[in-house]
Amino acid sequence: MKLEKLVGERFKERPSDCVVDSHALMVRGGYMKYVANGIFSSYMPLKRITRKIEGILREEMDKIDGQEVSFPVVMPATLWQESGRYESIGKELVRFSDRNGSPVVLGMTHEEAAVQLVREYGQSYMKYPFMIYQIQTKFRDEARPKSGLIRVREFTMKDAYSFHTSQADLEEYYDRCHKAYERIFARAGIPEVVSVASDSGMMGGSISHEFMLLTDIGEDSIVICPECGYRANMEAAENIIEYTRTTPSEELTKVYTPNKHTIEEVCTFLGCDEKSSCKAVVYQRNSDDRYVVLFLRGDLEVNETKLTNFLGFDIHPAVITLESGLNAGFIGPVGLGGDAIVLYDRSLKGMNNLVCGANEEEHHYTGLDMERDVPNAEYHDFAKIQAGGICPVCGKHSITISRGIEVGNIFQLGTKYTRSMGMTYTDSEGNTQHPIMGCYGIGVGRLAAAICEVHHDDYGPIWPISIAPWQVHLCAVRADDAEVKAYADKLYEELESRGIEVIYDDRNISAGVMFSDADLLGVPYRAVVSPRNMKQNIVEISSRDKSIKTTASVETAAEEIAKIISDALAAI
Amino acid sequence: MKLEKLVGERFKERPSDCVVDSHALMVRGGYMKYVANGIFSSYMPLKRITRKIEGILREEMDKIDGQEVSFPVVMPATLWQESGRYESIGKELVRFSDRNGSPVVLGMTHEEAAVQLVREYGQSYMKYPFMIYQIQTKFRDEARPKSGLIRVREFTMKDAYSFHTSQADLEEYYDRCHKAYERIFARAGIPEVVSVASDSGMMGGSISHEFMLLTDIGEDSIVICPECGYRANMEAAENIIEYTRTTPSEELTKVYTPNKHTIEEVCTFLGCDEKSSCKAVVYQRNSDDRYVVLFLRGDLEVNETKLTNFLGFDIHPAVITLESGLNAGFIGPVGLGGDAIVLYDRSLKGMNNLVCGANEEEHHYTGLDMERDVPNAEYHDFAKIQAGGICPVCGKHSITISRGIEVGNIFQLGTKYTRSMGMTYTDSEGNTQHPIMGCYGIGVGRLAAAICEVHHDDYGPIWPISIAPWQVHLCAVRADDAEVKAYADKLYEELESRGIEVIYDDRNISAGVMFSDADLLGVPYRAVVSPRNMKQNIVEISSRDKSIKTTASVETAAEEIAKIISDALAAI
Repeated sequence: MKLEKLVGERFKERPSDCVVDSHALMVRGGYMKYVANGIFSSYMPLKRITRKIEGILREEMDKIDGQEVSFPVVMPATLWQESGRYESIGKELVRFSDRNGSPVVLGMTHEEAAVQLVREYGQSYMKYPFMIYQIQTKFRDEARPKSGLIRVREFTMKDAYSFHTSQADLEEYYDRCHKAYERIFARAGIPEVVSVASDSGMMGGSISHEFMLLTDIGEDSIVICPECGYRANMEAAENIIEYTRTTPSEELTKVYTPNKHTIEEVCTFLGCDEKSSCKAVVYQRNSDDRYVVLFLRGDLEVNETKLTNFLGFDIHPAVITLESGLNAGFIGPVGLGGDAIVLYDRSLKGMNNLVCGANEEEHHYTGLDMERDVPNAEYHDFAKIQAGGICPVCGKHSITISRGIEVGNIFQLGTKYTRSMGMTYTDSEGNTQHPIMGCYGIGVGRLAAAICEVHHDDYGPIWPISIAPWQVHLCAVRADDAEVKAYADKLYEELESRGIEVIYDDRNISAGVMFSDADLLGVPYRAVVSPRNMKQNIVEISSRDKSIKTTASVETAAEEIAKIISDALAAI
Repeated sequence: MKLEKLVGERFKERPSDCVVDSHALMVRGGYMKYVANGIFSSYMPLKRITRKIEGILREEMDKIDGQEVSFPVVMPATLWQESGRYESIGKELVRFSDRNGSPVVLGMTHEEAAVQLVREYGQSYMKYPFMIYQIQTKFRDEARPKSGLIRVREFTMKDAYSFHTSQADLEEYYDRCHKAYERIFARAGIPEVVSVASDSGMMGGSISHEFMLLTDIGEDSIVICPECGYRANMEAAENIIEYTRTTPSEELTKVYTPNKHTIEEVCTFLGCDEKSSCKAVVYQRNSDDRYVVLFLRGDLEVNETKLTNFLGFDIHPAVITLESGLNAGFIGPVGLGGDAIVLYDRSLKGMNNLVCGANEEEHHYTGLDMERDVPNAEYHDFAKIQAGGICPVCGKHSITISRGIEVGNIFQLGTKYTRSMGMTYTDSEGNTQHPIMGCYGIGVGRLAAAICEVHHDDYGPIWPISIAPWQVHLCAVRADDAEVKAYADKLYEELESRGIEVIYDDRNISAGVMFSDADLLGVPYRAVVSPRNMKQNIVEISSRDKSIKTTASVETAAEEIAKIISDALAAI
């Protein structure tokens, strides 16, 4: 491929709307173009990268006995009504009506379609286990698409669905898939990806893992215990609390706290630690705006995922009205009016000598004793774990928190879909059973962007050879020099005839522009033919990651480049 | 791949809702499953077929310098408003609003997206020509999806867009693409596909061709002149009329024609030939229901494509009300009331002694002389050409009409999109110009189904090796026989190690079921291991199309099968 003919523009300036590096470099390098919020077109270099990623995904899915199928993008609403998700999923699920007025959805995931495809096939236990997968376009109407290909609305995803007759069989397969994912990320150049326990969210099921590439631009907070290896997404991480009751328990005393609304202001005013306060965080139920008041220790943050999972319905931060019976800024567990759902985080369990709201304008209490003053409270885990917190596995104060990009996920779904959609099989004893499912996803574009996040410098991406758009970037510096042009043309042909993927720049432009374009395309190996090199009968060969910088004679250059590439491919 | 693990069901009975053979066989063979009207999921065998077709498409597009890109499925309406198609296309274009209320469409074709992708890139004449293509899911909300994968709503299409600075350059590229299409169809096993001149329809532009696979189940009528080789889609074929005025011209005479409404009834009643009648066909404009009355010779049919192209707006068959001023069944050109748009087909030009409606209940005229009685009529070509009609190229009465499935199309679009969407470049003299476009489509699923239509027997598809889901179907008849099983297992491994794609049936079932499953999967070559064959130390080798039926010794079977396959692949 001649670079001169490559459709797409490359430029120097970082676009002002690009927050993360992968986005900026992929726009600057002519990989992608904005079409609408969270919707992009791809130019050839990105298409070549994603096709290579898809090739790796196919190979690894086939290795674990996956069968490639395809499901529709547009699906009848009835299918999603069967599972109940037509109602339970929010606006991310695009719903519209076709020309005949039939309600349809755009697929954002395909559990329903997978069950529909195999519901008749899987009627005997002898057909199990099996796994089907597809690589297909999906649409999720994200409220806040951002970070280029990291969080989009339209995306290509490899999604796989396995079906089993026992939990043990699912777990065995889940583990095989976990290992396949490790191979996928290693082959794609990011072996450092780690799996973390995660929350299953709208997918249902109990056990699930996310594969996280740790990087500061990641949207997820990852809880890691370096002592025992425990890893979890913040959303799913249990928060262990040490019991710190003090003596003696003082009396509950109302104090005047003028203009002190936040827990910070109140604690500063009263000269106490936030850890000795009980704060209220208020939400409302999405369906009817009923209030939910959660009390937790003043220094902790709410883990909304755990809260939502406990409640079983969706919530949003509250707008506290005068009619609510709630005294915004002064809410406390003693004498709370209104009909809110009231919850207590376990950080408060058994605690005493706390500051809290007095449910009265400009007043707080001191000396709150949960056991004495709120005797009927039940305590659950609703708070975010903090750095330095207690590891829920080894019990040490060892927790660290990192940022990560989720590049894959795997779920043990149980019978959520097969039960709701009426998929059954007859077991070996003639009984009717619901198959047990697992599902396994990897977003192709996000993976490409994540790889770019950890493999780039200021000048462009540094693509791992397994997914690079081309293998060699051949530069003919001073292509107006007949000798340079003739030799570079010949080297281009020789490399291509060896099956090497070459992008060939024979434009009559400055070496500076040529090299900065090459940096933006991020091809792992570069060969430079120039008048100076020709005088010495050599070709300069270097790697984009700077680990190789060598020369070869013009006679053996093709062979030496081929060797470098085959060695690099063999090393994956 | 072991057939025992292949997800999908195969069965004998032809499903009652399948009209065409490809649909019936692909349902019976476990290739596809109905999800909604015109929307299907694919099982692994179909996915393998379509991936091979996509491989051929990619190779041939790359050979003509195409660059693979990708466009979104969901696009902002603004893009389609720029081209004007947001308004001009009917309900086939799915329109809905995203969560923020922004109107979006589902891509049914991607001219707008292609222009959007390259609008900034293509600003200098030096960038031209170039071609970009994608293989992507599309959605067209067809009113009447039918015939399985032949006419669906959701489909995968290879769509390509070329950009040029002169008509001559477009024509040269158009011809290259035409040749690439011929290679594609030949490689896919249907070299008999012919290209025909076609109507450009909603795509715009002037010259276009469709690639037609001639078969009786085709939805299109293809006009062919065996004398000179002229070929056109009925929609685009000119209808040449010989002038047949008779003498003398009789007087216009009103006659009583009780209960005679159709032109056939009237002609029978009056004892005249339909060719001597002037019939009216009535439509209404979609936008405001204004009437359109078309007069043409009684024996001819209306070519609605030519009519719509002439009118420049969409129409539908009329509902004639009492207020319309039209006398249904008695409409004629003399004394016609109402404010309809009135058109005359050139079959009436100069004609006389015709029967026509008298615009009065139960009355017709005889003796209509178009020159004398309708002196201001203008005549255009609105009628369908008939078998035995005059070839518009060689002038002989040689026209034959066949049915065909459209398996591809190519269009010279001109500047329709670049002009409306403001895409310009600076030519070598510094002038601003609009690039000239071509576009080129092939539907992947429809192509698979079309191939099945012409390559099948009563028992199943007979896939050409280039697109077959597997290359060899290995049957172990009586897999409960240890010798059979051991040898078949070994042959399976040997074939796979040679890189041959094998589907291996080692189920302990009857030979009858095994062979009928093999017929349904349509794999081109079959190898049968059985107790009887083992006694003779042979393997039976046959081809699905019955051209090969031979045996090989158990020692050399793998090698001989490999040779048959490599010969077959080489012959493509």
